[in-house]
Amino acid sequence: MTRLSARRAARRTGDVPRQRPWRRLVNRYRPFEVLSADEIEFIHRSSLEILERLGLEFLSDGALDRLARAGQRVDRAQRRVRFDGAFVAEMVAKAPAEITLHARNPERTVVLGGNHVNFSSVAGPPNCSDLEGGRRPGNYVDFCNLVRLAHSLNALHTAGGSPVAPQELPPATRHLDCYLGFLTLTDKVWQASALGRQRIADAIDMMCLSRGIDRAEIARAPGLMTVVNTNSPLRVDGPMVDGLTEMAENGQPVIVTPFTLAGAMSPVSLAGALAQQNAEALGVIALIQLIRPGAPVVYGGFTSNVDMRTGAPAFGTPEYAQAVLAGGQLARRYRLPYRSSNVNSSNLVDAQAAYESQMSLWPAVMGHANLVYHGAGWLEGGLVASYEKMVLDAEMLQMMAAFLEPMPVDAASVAIDAMEEVGPGGHFFGAKHTMARYETAFYQPMLSDWRNYETWRIDGAKSATERAAAISKALLRDYEPPPLDPGRREALDAFVARRRPELMADPPP
Amino acid sequence: MTRLSARRAARRTGDVPRQRPWRRLVNRYRPFEVLSADEIEFIHRSSLEILERLGLEFLSDGALDRLARAGQRVDRAQRRVRFDGAFVAEMVAKAPAEITLHARNPERTVVLGGNHVNFSSVAGPPNCSDLEGGRRPGNYVDFCNLVRLAHSLNALHTAGGSPVAPQELPPATRHLDCYLGFLTLTDKVWQASALGRQRIADAIDMMCLSRGIDRAEIARAPGLMTVVNTNSPLRVDGPMVDGLTEMAENGQPVIVTPFTLAGAMSPVSLAGALAQQNAEALGVIALIQLIRPGAPVVYGGFTSNVDMRTGAPAFGTPEYAQAVLAGGQLARRYRLPYRSSNVNSSNLVDAQAAYESQMSLWPAVMGHANLVYHGAGWLEGGLVASYEKMVLDAEMLQMMAAFLEPMPVDAASVAIDAMEEVGPGGHFFGAKHTMARYETAFYQPMLSDWRNYETWRIDGAKSATERAAAISKALLRDYEPPPLDPGRREALDAFVARRRPELMADPPP
Repeated sequence: MTRLSARRAARRTGDVPRQRPWRRLVNRYRPFEVLSADEIEFIHRSSLEILERLGLEFLSDGALDRLARAGQRVDRAQRRVRFDGAFVAEMVAKAPAEITLHARNPERTVVLGGNHVNFSSVAGPPNCSDLEGGRRPGNYVDFCNLVRLAHSLNALHTAGGSPVAPQELPPATRHLDCYLGFLTLTDKVWQASALGRQRIADAIDMMCLSRGIDRAEIARAPGLMTVVNTNSPLRVDGPMVDGLTEMAENGQPVIVTPFTLAGAMSPVSLAGALAQQNAEALGVIALIQLIRPGAPVVYGGFTSNVDMRTGAPAFGTPEYAQAVLAGGQLARRYRLPYRSSNVNSSNLVDAQAAYESQMSLWPAVMGHANLVYHGAGWLEGGLVASYEKMVLDAEMLQMMAAFLEPMPVDAASVAIDAMEEVGPGGHFFGAKHTMARYETAFYQPMLSDWRNYETWRIDGAKSATERAAAISKALLRDYEPPPLDPGRREALDAFVARRRPELMADPPP
Repeated sequence: MTRLSARRAARRTGDVPRQRPWRRLVNRYRPFEVLSADEIEFIHRSSLEILERLGLEFLSDGALDRLARAGQRVDRAQRRVRFDGAFVAEMVAKAPAEITLHARNPERTVVLGGNHVNFSSVAGPPNCSDLEGGRRPGNYVDFCNLVRLAHSLNALHTAGGSPVAPQELPPATRHLDCYLGFLTLTDKVWQASALGRQRIADAIDMMCLSRGIDRAEIARAPGLMTVVNTNSPLRVDGPMVDGLTEMAENGQPVIVTPFTLAGAMSPVSLAGALAQQNAEALGVIALIQLIRPGAPVVYGGFTSNVDMRTGAPAFGTPEYAQAVLAGGQLARRYRLPYRSSNVNSSNLVDAQAAYESQMSLWPAVMGHANLVYHGAGWLEGGLVASYEKMVLDAEMLQMMAAFLEPMPVDAASVAIDAMEEVGPGGHFFGAKHTMARYETAFYQPMLSDWRNYETWRIDGAKSATERAAAISKALLRDYEPPPLDPGRREALDAFVARRRPELMADPPP
């Protein structure tokens, strides 16, 4: 069977989903606030007090030197920097409020900041799973398939970071394979690993090659993201500092995301976790602005709580929802783009996975997150990237996108004439007003099954998760790589061929 | 095994859920708005135009007479009433903004209106289902079990209406069995059937007997709800008018809920469906206020859309979410309590059921619904009451309740001293601040499983739906009926014994 006829056959099976087109999203609603302005100020002042009195530990001589030169109190023995509050405020104010992130396909360029909303796919799990193959360690085949899905799902604005770690590949060169995978399998923006300077430098070089530009140009038109997590509480690791330094020097945006799980890595009370999140984020952002004033940064919030009986992290909890909304208020206070996530703690793509994801997604959108990280595919508290969850999440993201579209309110949409035409007790199915609008009137689902019970039962009584499995297979079967200029492709291959032995000889940290 | 030892054994199995206590809820957040004030006014004016120009059809001579006497333009041949806008506004303004609904157990009394939030269990499905017994027609055994669950689940403030129709019982007297079931199996507020005057009159009489009060007293301290649906578009059925008349005359609250499915019973555009919803609601509320000025009413919103390919109703859609929020804005414009719902179209208690419910629940809560109807147990677009969905929803409602609790923000909760005690890179598990607060710090789930994959797998790898089934069984095994004064119980039995032959001889419509 040829590729084309295979595709036609697939269409006949009905598995190929109808999706909304890829489209930039703007949230016109007023941001939802869980804290008063006074409470936000209290958290702000508390975080400056944390930075001044306790400071942050930097496991990086470069960071200590740089901050000492800028007049901050540095305790070399403790590797601790105690910040001046006014300095922090001055540095943070240098960061831009809005970032345009250039994809190698200009049509997939996105904006972070303001009222823009972007959904990004899962990043970082060590394992992956699908219904058929079960749970397994990450590997490069699954990495590529998950990137293909991220490319194929229109609800995802960016491909996010490594959807699963290809554990069979040598750690020293694994990032090259991942970057090559991203650059050939999708034309959406993706994310590099901030573990050290070399991994970031390779990402920037490869991104430049794919766009046919140089480092000066990519600094003007950034196209790469990375996430820098603090090692909460109050510690910043060396490789993270190296990574963010390389990013900042090259004008690429760093998403600064403290990992402040209340009760474990931050106080058991949410306000404390938020104050610590804010202190860590502001401290690292100040360092980035010191490296390159005006370097793009994103304020990342990831405050959740642990289950105090077991110490297990929990996501999509009521506390998480409040923290997401408060985090948005803090980010807006500093006029910084805001990153949140679509997370859950479920071990299965079941009702729990769905309701915990919704408990993440609603506050992220209501709280005006500009980047909803882990937007599709996250399962098991981030230990698994799931094929079915990718599709399930994409449906939920599509629904959210439709929810953000303004409802027209005018005489034509109120349609009193249609009511007159139909009259009491009638129906609108055949009304002129209906006929003119019904094809585009409502959200059309990709995954949800609205058929009546009998029709659904006779068709196999499939659960949403089983249907998601069929959709992910159909998407992979139909997947076509986005065009890439052959010369640029050759340059990328040559780069990887050169770097691979270099990195094997001199592995990055 | 004795009852007590059975309970102990059940506790050992871990199936008996830990729940949040029953607690009244207040939503301190600012209501979320999808429409501007101008747009709400446009819908308001449009609905008055609908009432003036098209009017409503009342299949009730009593309603036509009453509205004619009040000066409205009545077309007897068409049974159509064209309303005067000023009259409607004047009548609607007579309705109280807040209603206290007295349960037979005073501790379960609830308030509808203002910032109060109440969750109510499923009402009305013809069928029911559980994992073990499958899908089956409604019957009295399931009716009683579902009422027992509604009583046992603390997240539910009121028991709602008949959770499933006991189809094997004679239609003429079925309501007596249902009311007796409610009054003996739960002490929470419940809801009567508005199909005609007699069914309401029996409910009021039985409610009075259960509380040891008379009709004058229950009018001062109402304790019964009913839902009146319009037969959209623009038609009000006779039995509904009879039911609301009996309710209004006795001071019991009527939840006026037009059934405006966009594309079928209302225009295919959401603004049209909302204008029609508003017109129908205001017209019926005006009639109720004419019957008894100041009679308690609730503004009900149920606007959703159909799947235009099949005509099937869809719930928990993006359009539904917008309509719920706009409905809240309209209800607040008239200072009326607002009713919304927790709905979905799934045929299974799966991820779709969960995400569609969340797409209903978030806007209901953000939009300050005072009564979230069908709060637990609704499945299959309302055709099925599900045991597992009852438990799943109760978990989601509990989470929403926890989300509505204000986050303390003060020096004690920010806990900079705890951060100092722990220091960079440490953990907070043993910190003094943690030890003093950890037991009550976070939401504790009833259903969500946060254990790691291995522990969960060894314990049977149960899905949320399977765990919900176990919880519903444990709740029913442990169920104990609330106390009811033996004299009142006798009076109820005597009432039913007297009414049963009367109704069989002279069946209500």
